[in-house]
Parts: sequence; C-alpha cells; structure tokens
Amino acid sequence: MIGNIDEHRRAAATEGGNGFLAAAGGADTDTAPVWLMRQAGRYLPEYRKIKERYGFWRMVRTPEIAAEVTLQPLARFPLDAAILFSDIMTPLPAMGVRIEFAPGPQIPDPVRTAADVAALRLPEQDEIAPFVGRAVELVRTATSRPLIGFAGAPLTLAAYLVQGSGGGDYATFRTWLHAEPRAAATLLDLLTEVTIGYLRMQVAAGAQAVQLFDSWAGITDTATYGRYGAPYVRRVLRALDTAGVPRIYLAVAAGHLYPQLAELPAEMISIDWRTPLSRARTVLAGKALQGNLDPAILFAPPAVVAAETERTLRAGLGGPHVFNLGHGVLEHTPIDSVARLVDTVHAFRRHEEGNRHDES
Amino acid sequence: MIGNIDEHRRAAATEGGNGFLAAAGGADTDTAPVWLMRQAGRYLPEYRKIKERYGFWRMVRTPEIAAEVTLQPLARFPLDAAILFSDIMTPLPAMGVRIEFAPGPQIPDPVRTAADVAALRLPEQDEIAPFVGRAVELVRTATSRPLIGFAGAPLTLAAYLVQGSGGGDYATFRTWLHAEPRAAATLLDLLTEVTIGYLRMQVAAGAQAVQLFDSWAGITDTATYGRYGAPYVRRVLRALDTAGVPRIYLAVAAGHLYPQLAELPAEMISIDWRTPLSRARTVLAGKALQGNLDPAILFAPPAVVAAETERTLRAGLGGPHVFNLGHGVLEHTPIDSVARLVDTVHAFRRHEEGNRHDES
Repeated sequence: MIGNIDEHRRAAATEGGNGFLAAAGGADTDTAPVWLMRQAGRYLPEYRKIKERYGFWRMVRTPEIAAEVTLQPLARFPLDAAILFSDIMTPLPAMGVRIEFAPGPQIPDPVRTAADVAALRLPEQDEIAPFVGRAVELVRTATSRPLIGFAGAPLTLAAYLVQGSGGGDYATFRTWLHAEPRAAATLLDLLTEVTIGYLRMQVAAGAQAVQLFDSWAGITDTATYGRYGAPYVRRVLRALDTAGVPRIYLAVAAGHLYPQLAELPAEMISIDWRTPLSRARTVLAGKALQGNLDPAILFAPPAVVAAETERTLRAGLGGPHVFNLGHGVLEHTPIDSVARLVDTVHAFRRHEEGNRHDES
Repeated sequence: MIGNIDEHRRAAATEGGNGFLAAAGGADTDTAPVWLMRQAGRYLPEYRKIKERYGFWRMVRTPEIAAEVTLQPLARFPLDAAILFSDIMTPLPAMGVRIEFAPGPQIPDPVRTAADVAALRLPEQDEIAPFVGRAVELVRTATSRPLIGFAGAPLTLAAYLVQGSGGGDYATFRTWLHAEPRAAATLLDLLTEVTIGYLRMQVAAGAQAVQLFDSWAGITDTATYGRYGAPYVRRVLRALDTAGVPRIYLAVAAGHLYPQLAELPAEMISIDWRTPLSRARTVLAGKALQGNLDPAILFAPPAVVAAETERTLRAGLGGPHVFNLGHGVLEHTPIDSVARLVDTVHAFRRHEEGNRHDES
C-alpha cells in the first residue's frame, strides 16, 4: 500500500503550473486554483484502508505513510495543491503533553494552573516533530504540485490544552483566560515559539505555503481575541516574513473578528461557509481569499453541487481567489461530488464577461 | 417544595417598576434592567432538588412546578424580569414528534423525507401546550415583575427535527435544506404556524414580552438564512404586531447575519458575547439591545466579574439596553457571581457623566 511515491514522482513531471502559489500570493488568476481542507481523509476508501491498519497517530508520525496519504487525493483529482497530512496537535507531545485520540483529540491532563504551564517544555526546532519534515521532503520529491504546510494557531492549541477536549464552546477555557491572565499569556508565548519553530522547520523541509488553523478563534469575543488571539497570530506570521511563502490564516465562525483579521500579516484569509466571499472581500481589502463552499452541499444532488460551486466562484470575483470548502471535507462525502466540484472550478473563467460579480 | 406562589404574590405587592418593558420597548433607561437566560436552572440548588424529584419534562409539563421554578431566581436576586421555565421543544409533541431528553433533546425519528414532513400535524392553538398557558397565569398572579414568554424559531426547531439531536454544526440539516428545498419550505411553514399559535397563546395567558430563540441560526450562511431563516422569523414576529408586547430575537454566533437581523420586526435583538454591544448598536440601528456578558466570566474572581459587567454596561450606552448574558447561565455558576452581576448592573447610572461610551 505504501510505496506509490515513485509513481507520483513520474506523474509529476508531466504536470503544469496551476496558479495556486500565484493566487495565494495575490494574483487575480483567470481560473481559481482549488484544494480542499481534509482532502486526504475518511471519505476516501484508500485512506480508510491505511487508517484501519495503522491508526491515526501512527499515520501522522510515520513519514512514508503521511506522505502517501497526502498524495492520495492528488491521484484522484486534478487538485492544485497538496496539504500535508497531519494534525494540529502534532507539535504538542514534544512539549510534554500527552494526547489521546478517542477519536477526537483528548488531553488527559489539561493545563489549568501556572504550575501546569511551567511544566511544559520549549523543544528545540528540530525536536518538535522531525517526522513531519521528512514527510514534507517525501511529498516534494513525489509531486510538482505545491505543498501547503500547516500548524494550529496558539489560541486554538491553548483552547484544547486547557479545556482538555474539543468541541462545544470551550467555556472552561474562556473562564481561564479571564481568571488566569498571566498563566494564559505565558502559555500563549510558549505555544507561539513552538509554532514558529514548527512552521520554519516545514518551510525549510520544502513546504511552499503555510496555513495557520485558528479553528476555535470564533468562540472568543472581540476584546478577548484582541488580547489572546491576534497578537500571537501576528508574531507567528511575522516570523515567516522572510520565508518567501504565502501565509494563509483560517478562523472558523469568526465573522465578528474580520475587522481584526484584516490587520494580520497574512497574504490570504480562508473564509468559512457563513460569510459570502463578496462581503469578505470588502472587509478584508487587499487580501487574497480562500473558500468557501459549505461542505454539507457535497451531499446534495449533482446540479446543486455545480450551481452552488458556481455561485461561490462568482462571489469570489474581483480579486485573488483560491477555491476551497468553508470547512473540512466531511466523512461519507460522495467522491463524485468532489470530482464535480474540482471540474466546475477549473471550467470557470474568472475574467469572462458573462461571469458577473454576485452580491449574494 | 411546590406551593411558594402565595409568598411570591405577597412579595410582589411591594415591588416597584423596573424598566424592563420600557427598555425592551425602546426607552434609553437610566439603569439597565437585567435578567439572565437560564436564570432558572441547574446552578440553583432549589432547582436541582425539584429536577431530581420530577425530571425535566415533567417540570415543563406541570404548571405548578414550571411556575415555581420560574420564580426561584426572582426570590434570590432583584432581577427585573421573569422568563417562563420551559424548553423550545415544548410545542413539538402536539405535532406528533417524539422527544427524549438524554439529557439534551433527542428526536428518535428525525424528519428526513417529504413523507416525514407530511406526517406532522398542525395542532389547534389551544392544543399546542395548554400547560404552558396555565403556568404563565400562575406566574402572573405571583409576581408583579414582567414575565417573558418564548419559543424556538422555525429554523432552529427544524434543525433539531432533521438532525435528530443538538450540537455540532448540523451538517445533515444543512445538506437537507439544499437537497429537499420543497420539503424544507413545507416544514418551516408548519413550524411557523405552530410557533405563532404557541406565542399568541402565551400572550393571551399573560406573557408581557416574547423572545424568539434562534439558537442555531449561526450555522447557516447568509444566503441560506435569507431563504430559510429570516422570512419565517418575520412571519412569526409580524403575527404579534398587534399583541402589544416587545418582541425579542436571539440568534447565537450570528455576527455574519446582523445586517439581515436589522430588517426584522423585533423591538430588541439579543446579542451573544462575541460582538461588542457598541458595534451591534451601529449595525442594528433603531433596535433595543440585550446582552451580552460572556457567561464563562461568572466563574472568574469577583473583581473580574464586576469589571467585565461594567465594561459591558459601557458598551451598551447610547441607546436602549437590557442587560443579560451572551448565552444561558452555565451549570455550576457560582451564585454569588450572579448576585454581584445584578448588583453591579443596578448600581450603574447610564446617564452619568463619568460613564463614557466604550468602543471596545
């Protein structure tokens, strides 16, 4: 099952440019390049086979498997970028954090006190997750399509560490930020340093763009995000100023934070399905936009998938646009729908007269 | 345990006016009236005692118990309004829906097909939940403080009915709206009629204001809300045009929908903790605002509770404001924090020079 990397490498030689790096860097390309969050995932039978055999954490930590899984969706669909198969929790074990997957990530010993924070260690850059760097190198040898590296944003990692499990509104974490502001700042400082090292390592290994996932930014009010979210995101992104790769930032369910996102040093902002790209374009002037079809729509009939994909494309006109879903591909998503989506995106000429800007 | 209603009635005779109805109706009162979503709930030991004995559904369906529980927080705190103890699922059994609480509401037979929708019945107004009307009457005889009735908004009720259980992002429901648009419209029509009848019944029984809870509106993108959310909310609220009661609308995590909320015929919009009231005031010009302290802050130290309450009060200046949390009171909330919050709100003079408008 593992070992198809050579096949990918041969296929890569025949692939042309695709515009992902151009659009992510700010070019208003004639077609929207497309990749999908969780494009390597449970909706693919070849993924499920590997997962049954090795389990999630071993897949993440074994470079050959992570690379193979990263490449799976590229073999099926003419996607314009690969994203490294991994998890935002990957750098945390090197800090001394124990993580279990059940199946979502669980922290059996959540961080709650200043002493808990002090017990975390700051690993050297090459200690954080060396297997990820190796996986990046393997993917780069196997495809000419651009590879996106990624990490979780400090606030989102802190939310997991303090709450102890995912989901919900992270009320314990929200209280903690207000009850333990000094410990919170120390924890976020530490996570910021680790995230910088982790992303620099991925870029050094060959990642050609980076996406910072702030999955839980949307649980915070604007003042809390202004204190505990944005400043740390800014530090992470600034540390990549000279890395020469487009920086993508995703904050989910965070429409109330967009004015603050507009000030971040990211070339591209990834928009979830809630806010139309046409409106995001106004608030986030000067940014490339990524998104934002509702992943639930891929379960609707083919005509609906095509129509809603085109509606999203029209809403994305008027500036640089990388097509994506508004969130990750859902389990059980029909593979034919993904294929239809990619074809619809590639068939759409963004600068043609008939494709007017849609103010939906 | 039951039977304290006479005591409340005696106490009520000594209570003065408090401004809730004035502020909800659009008056820029000198102090902000205050009540809290889920003010009758599990953080109160007297509530837990009753719940252990009767269980949630029996509490809701027995007028004397529902009235008693409604009055519990009023006996502890000088709150400026009561909200009927009930659940947004209450009107659904009369439509033929089976609901279980485990402990959140579960629909063992979710609505998925046009036939499932056709099998639902439209009950007469006096069949929907007559026990709720009786509870309203009992509360009105027992307190002079204004009583708020409530219902779930059609979209939120439909989300539960289709998904089958609460929480998450309701992906099945989001797909369903796109895959079965005709069945969706039929279901929402039916839920709109039931909700109108249910709220009219509450007003006829004595409810002096109504709040429509659209707990899951925030999962929808703006186009979907424009088609399946707002039009049905508008019909419900319009049907109460001549009822003479302030209409309050709450949509959670819905900052992206505020421009659409501005057009709804509600006197007051309830804001969750994410968006500062000062910004909501701009988008929702002409509306009274309700909210919006993060309920997680009630677990922080006393000085933080007081400071954040005052920050919320300052953000609420410049127009009518009813103080509330940004979401319901959480389980295990310290009772002293609730008392401190209410006292802080009542001590704050909104028209005094020193209390400047805070653009946080």
